[in-house]
Amino acid sequence: MAISFEVVARCPDTGARAGVLTTPHGQIKTPIFMPVGTLATVKAMTVDELEDINAQIILSNTYHLYLRPGHELVAQAGGLHRFMNWQHPILTDSGGFQVFSLGDMNKVDEDGVEFRSHIDGSRHYFTPEKVMEIEAALGADIIMAFDQCAPWPCTREFAEAALERTTRWAQRCKDSQINPHSQALFGIMQGGTYIDLRKKSAEALVKMDFPGYAIGGLSVGEPKEVMYDVLSQCVDFLPDEKPRYLMGVGSADYLLTGTWFGVDMFDCVLPTRIARNGTAMTSQGRLTVRNASYARDFSPLDPDCACPVCRNYTRAYLRHLVKNNEILGHRLLSYHNLYHLLKLMEGARQAIIDGNFVDYYRQHLPLEEVDRYKKRKE
Amino acid sequence: MAISFEVVARCPDTGARAGVLTTPHGQIKTPIFMPVGTLATVKAMTVDELEDINAQIILSNTYHLYLRPGHELVAQAGGLHRFMNWQHPILTDSGGFQVFSLGDMNKVDEDGVEFRSHIDGSRHYFTPEKVMEIEAALGADIIMAFDQCAPWPCTREFAEAALERTTRWAQRCKDSQINPHSQALFGIMQGGTYIDLRKKSAEALVKMDFPGYAIGGLSVGEPKEVMYDVLSQCVDFLPDEKPRYLMGVGSADYLLTGTWFGVDMFDCVLPTRIARNGTAMTSQGRLTVRNASYARDFSPLDPDCACPVCRNYTRAYLRHLVKNNEILGHRLLSYHNLYHLLKLMEGARQAIIDGNFVDYYRQHLPLEEVDRYKKRKE
Repeated sequence: MAISFEVVARCPDTGARAGVLTTPHGQIKTPIFMPVGTLATVKAMTVDELEDINAQIILSNTYHLYLRPGHELVAQAGGLHRFMNWQHPILTDSGGFQVFSLGDMNKVDEDGVEFRSHIDGSRHYFTPEKVMEIEAALGADIIMAFDQCAPWPCTREFAEAALERTTRWAQRCKDSQINPHSQALFGIMQGGTYIDLRKKSAEALVKMDFPGYAIGGLSVGEPKEVMYDVLSQCVDFLPDEKPRYLMGVGSADYLLTGTWFGVDMFDCVLPTRIARNGTAMTSQGRLTVRNASYARDFSPLDPDCACPVCRNYTRAYLRHLVKNNEILGHRLLSYHNLYHLLKLMEGARQAIIDGNFVDYYRQHLPLEEVDRYKKRKE
Repeated sequence: MAISFEVVARCPDTGARAGVLTTPHGQIKTPIFMPVGTLATVKAMTVDELEDINAQIILSNTYHLYLRPGHELVAQAGGLHRFMNWQHPILTDSGGFQVFSLGDMNKVDEDGVEFRSHIDGSRHYFTPEKVMEIEAALGADIIMAFDQCAPWPCTREFAEAALERTTRWAQRCKDSQINPHSQALFGIMQGGTYIDLRKKSAEALVKMDFPGYAIGGLSVGEPKEVMYDVLSQCVDFLPDEKPRYLMGVGSADYLLTGTWFGVDMFDCVLPTRIARNGTAMTSQGRLTVRNASYARDFSPLDPDCACPVCRNYTRAYLRHLVKNNEILGHRLLSYHNLYHLLKLMEGARQAIIDGNFVDYYRQHLPLEEVDRYKKRKE
């Protein structure tokens, strides 16, 4: 087995757990947020900075790397770790989300998906077997099965067909996986917002016995309440002893609530994307530092943050950089936002271990946010 | 006096000298290249990285900071050092070059220059007194007098009028300087490519007894041979015991040849600007890493360079970043280029001290480059 997972502490009042996920490139303490390095670079960050902020694992995108620079080039470079000089764990997604959301005029059939590159319109074809070949070339520690991600909203019929196809493709991924001893293949649950379909998807995947499971097809536009409702129920369809990964969420509320429900891994471009638009994540919520009100504000971005950006720079200076599209502005806000989210998750993990996760949650979010989903143990 | 300058070693064969320039924010070992931080940020670099590569002094632009974020805001932040969190020496130029090259529809009269902002077309008026006020607000260690920079080519009449005005403005700057004990005001020599005008300009400035002198109006489009010819002669019009600053050059040949002639300080956006276009400065000359030929080149940018970029990343990876306009590509190339130039100048200084500057020059450039300008001592 490429990875192993151990739950080391559980919150007595919620589904939250603290774990250790051991991979070929090191251990990851869960719950964890994974910064996204779409094109083999977490935008605006060096790998040294990622180490500084204790990023334990990063995610990179199969679809994007396949198009640029090409998976064969990455393989020739010695794999993604060597190519980008990141010696810690990496997870690659399968491109399933991107071929449907970015690829123009995609055509799905049972064999796979034909899509056009969002860059130059060139035609490409992804099948489960092809994606396994690409992900093997990239060489991440954790790789994702090729899935059909249904949009929101979608009909029950569409969601069911997509999940059934995802199940069949998951089996084909498993059957064609190239390096099962050095790469852990995760299955992806689909089923839209239909709870019985989520259960059906999970049961089929669990029978195939993957080393970990992702929850796909959430955070694709549905309201937060719908998301929480579906997530709170479908987490339990996945085995307790395996890592659970909620794909594509990166805001404090989703991370802490997902942790509450029992999710171990999260990823999203949100912290680095909003950073480049001049928005900081702070202990008091989002702060759009490009706003005129900060022009002469010589206080730190987040007075409660211990990161070097908050220790060394003022809102006025950061606003000046962001307003003038200076790379340093993108850098400093990206650094701060990732630091903020990783610290948030470190705190959540410690709170689970210390037995006060509910208090920790309440310090950051109102309990009403989560209580109605009945995931608080009686 | 805000600064002092001591020559600690001289090349016996050329005009090159090694010096120590002491400023309110620390000592600078000359000859030195000054990275340019136009908008209170050396583009793509943090101040920590500038310290890592031993940048001893940086330059920032009065024209740009006056427009964005405004010198009053910088003063309110506690001055440029505090605003940008750089605790080492800073030099600000006077805007003289920018109001003529960037400001649209500028109108010069004896009092000053009316110009339109290159950003929003708004009208502004710079006089020597106004520039002294702005530079005092910014609070750099070394500030430049407001000059009229003549273009190349220009007639003798134009060059003479511009230098005469520059001389009168230099006196007005001196008379209106606000903090002479904490900021050193440098005069700027003009005179185009007319040697006798250069001499006239220098003599007038030297009479005013500035703590340092700049050579302006070179590297404004004239051929390299013209530049070397004028520079080699006009350096000697400036006093030996004061620092000499050649404005706006940043390529290895200009830096080493300027050093040969007796220049102590240089600045230019070149290393960071070409970095953002995907070009590296290397021991073998410029390398345009975005070229297709480097797509699968897994060797370092410059095998002779010890910087972290060259130790940790391949040309193939850097090309991938640059091609995709990734901020990390701009960062890594900017870092490398500045490291390269600063190391080049550290080496030149050490060679002057060790008495082998001519050999050092020859390792980097053909001696023919400089020999014909008769600056090699007999």
